[in-house]
Amino acid sequence: MPLIAISDPDDPRIAAYHAVRERDVVGRGERFVAEGEVVLRLLVGDASRHAIESALIAETRVEALAAELARVPPETPVYVAGQTVMDAIVGFQIHRGVLAIGRRAPALNSVSLLARLPQTAVVVALVGVSNHDNVGGVFRNAAAFGADAVLLDGSSCDPLYRKAIRVSVGASLVMPFTRGGSGEALVDALDAAGFETLALSPAGDRTLETVTPAARAALLLGAEGPGLPAALMARTRTVSIAMAPGFDSLNVATTSGIALYAVTRGKAPKFRTRR
Amino acid sequence: MPLIAISDPDDPRIAAYHAVRERDVVGRGERFVAEGEVVLRLLVGDASRHAIESALIAETRVEALAAELARVPPETPVYVAGQTVMDAIVGFQIHRGVLAIGRRAPALNSVSLLARLPQTAVVVALVGVSNHDNVGGVFRNAAAFGADAVLLDGSSCDPLYRKAIRVSVGASLVMPFTRGGSGEALVDALDAAGFETLALSPAGDRTLETVTPAARAALLLGAEGPGLPAALMARTRTVSIAMAPGFDSLNVATTSGIALYAVTRGKAPKFRTRR
Repeated sequence: MPLIAISDPDDPRIAAYHAVRERDVVGRGERFVAEGEVVLRLLVGDASRHAIESALIAETRVEALAAELARVPPETPVYVAGQTVMDAIVGFQIHRGVLAIGRRAPALNSVSLLARLPQTAVVVALVGVSNHDNVGGVFRNAAAFGADAVLLDGSSCDPLYRKAIRVSVGASLVMPFTRGGSGEALVDALDAAGFETLALSPAGDRTLETVTPAARAALLLGAEGPGLPAALMARTRTVSIAMAPGFDSLNVATTSGIALYAVTRGKAPKFRTRR
Repeated sequence: MPLIAISDPDDPRIAAYHAVRERDVVGRGERFVAEGEVVLRLLVGDASRHAIESALIAETRVEALAAELARVPPETPVYVAGQTVMDAIVGFQIHRGVLAIGRRAPALNSVSLLARLPQTAVVVALVGVSNHDNVGGVFRNAAAFGADAVLLDGSSCDPLYRKAIRVSVGASLVMPFTRGGSGEALVDALDAAGFETLALSPAGDRTLETVTPAARAALLLGAEGPGLPAALMARTRTVSIAMAPGFDSLNVATTSGIALYAVTRGKAPKFRTRR
């Protein structure tokens, strides 16, 4: 964990931090951008599924981050710069002066991930949820309620986009997830693994508080607006959250929190932490 | 509801729309900025607590908004402009080409508002919640679950800031609210009106699912991070949401949704709509 002082914004050693932008939503292949103290702590912690490749820290933050920096592997560089240089490097005011580049763990496969979950398990499945805030919020809730995994179809956004990681408060770095394929393929995999899929929709057949979830339960959520495709609703158990007339919509991340609360009620503290 | 074509971005008639900015967070006294079709529909609908002063609509949207525009009072101007002119007026890409200026209803007083609520009522009280997304999210949830009112202390953000209205999907235009004073004064008013205040906190004494709410129940929420002041926790019934070890935090808007679900469970559809 060598601390390397950077005084030139154009120093080639910190090239990975160039072009990190407030609206940075472009995939970076094997790499992702993490920001903020809490996210750094999770990235270098025992529960992290991914590796840290380097960090870029404002010099005023180094002392307060001693515990986190001590967990950075010996061969991984930690660049230190003054705030002005940092701002010049990344082109915007960095979230509390803490940035890191991570390297993704190999992608998981939904069939094998589901197969190795315990017999009592809760997963969240997202179809067409492309908003970063919402995906980040779903991961935050999934971690808070001890869900076992999050499955995303290919049209949902990458949980390792910078903003999704930030909104998840780092949960997307520790929560096992898969991403890809169609919503149909997702429900196929859940069926094959013996999960009962509960499709959350304002048009659901029964209300959430009447549902007794199966030992293996999946909460299926679609995007706000279009909602879940009719074909997926037709083959799953559909569940609504009772709402006041005239205001029959909730944010999708909020919906995930309410549904996770309902299906894990009283059980969350017994759930294991992430590996 | 005269349609007035605008071709000059500097036309003095649309001066109120200048300087509406993406990060527009400055109070506008008696006025507020509303945007988007759903928000406009609520602003001109029966449930609105506030008045529309004018609207600015992209010419491509006029036809689709016929029903909403028919509800704009006869003396209220509706300005119509091409997208280029609209963008030049407000300085950013307008949310789907629909903007309106509203005029606030006279501020409510928390003591008199609480006094006139029904004997079975649920309110949400916010202390120090200054984030616009969170305040908007709380209003959206309060409306969805048929809460009767939202009370905000003076350090919480104005629910009629543009972004808060947008995130609330217009709920902050129809939900009765008060804002001002200290958290102590808020709890005083709730006590005096016979409300039992449930303070949501990760450090709460009992878990949410064990709580049977009183007929008049208030859900008290603080900002993420600092949470609720100890003095308020000491004088209220504190409630936690059981979470997995190591991830003991939820977004404040999500928390409001889960708590509203728990205390109104099965009752929301019977709640009246807003007047």
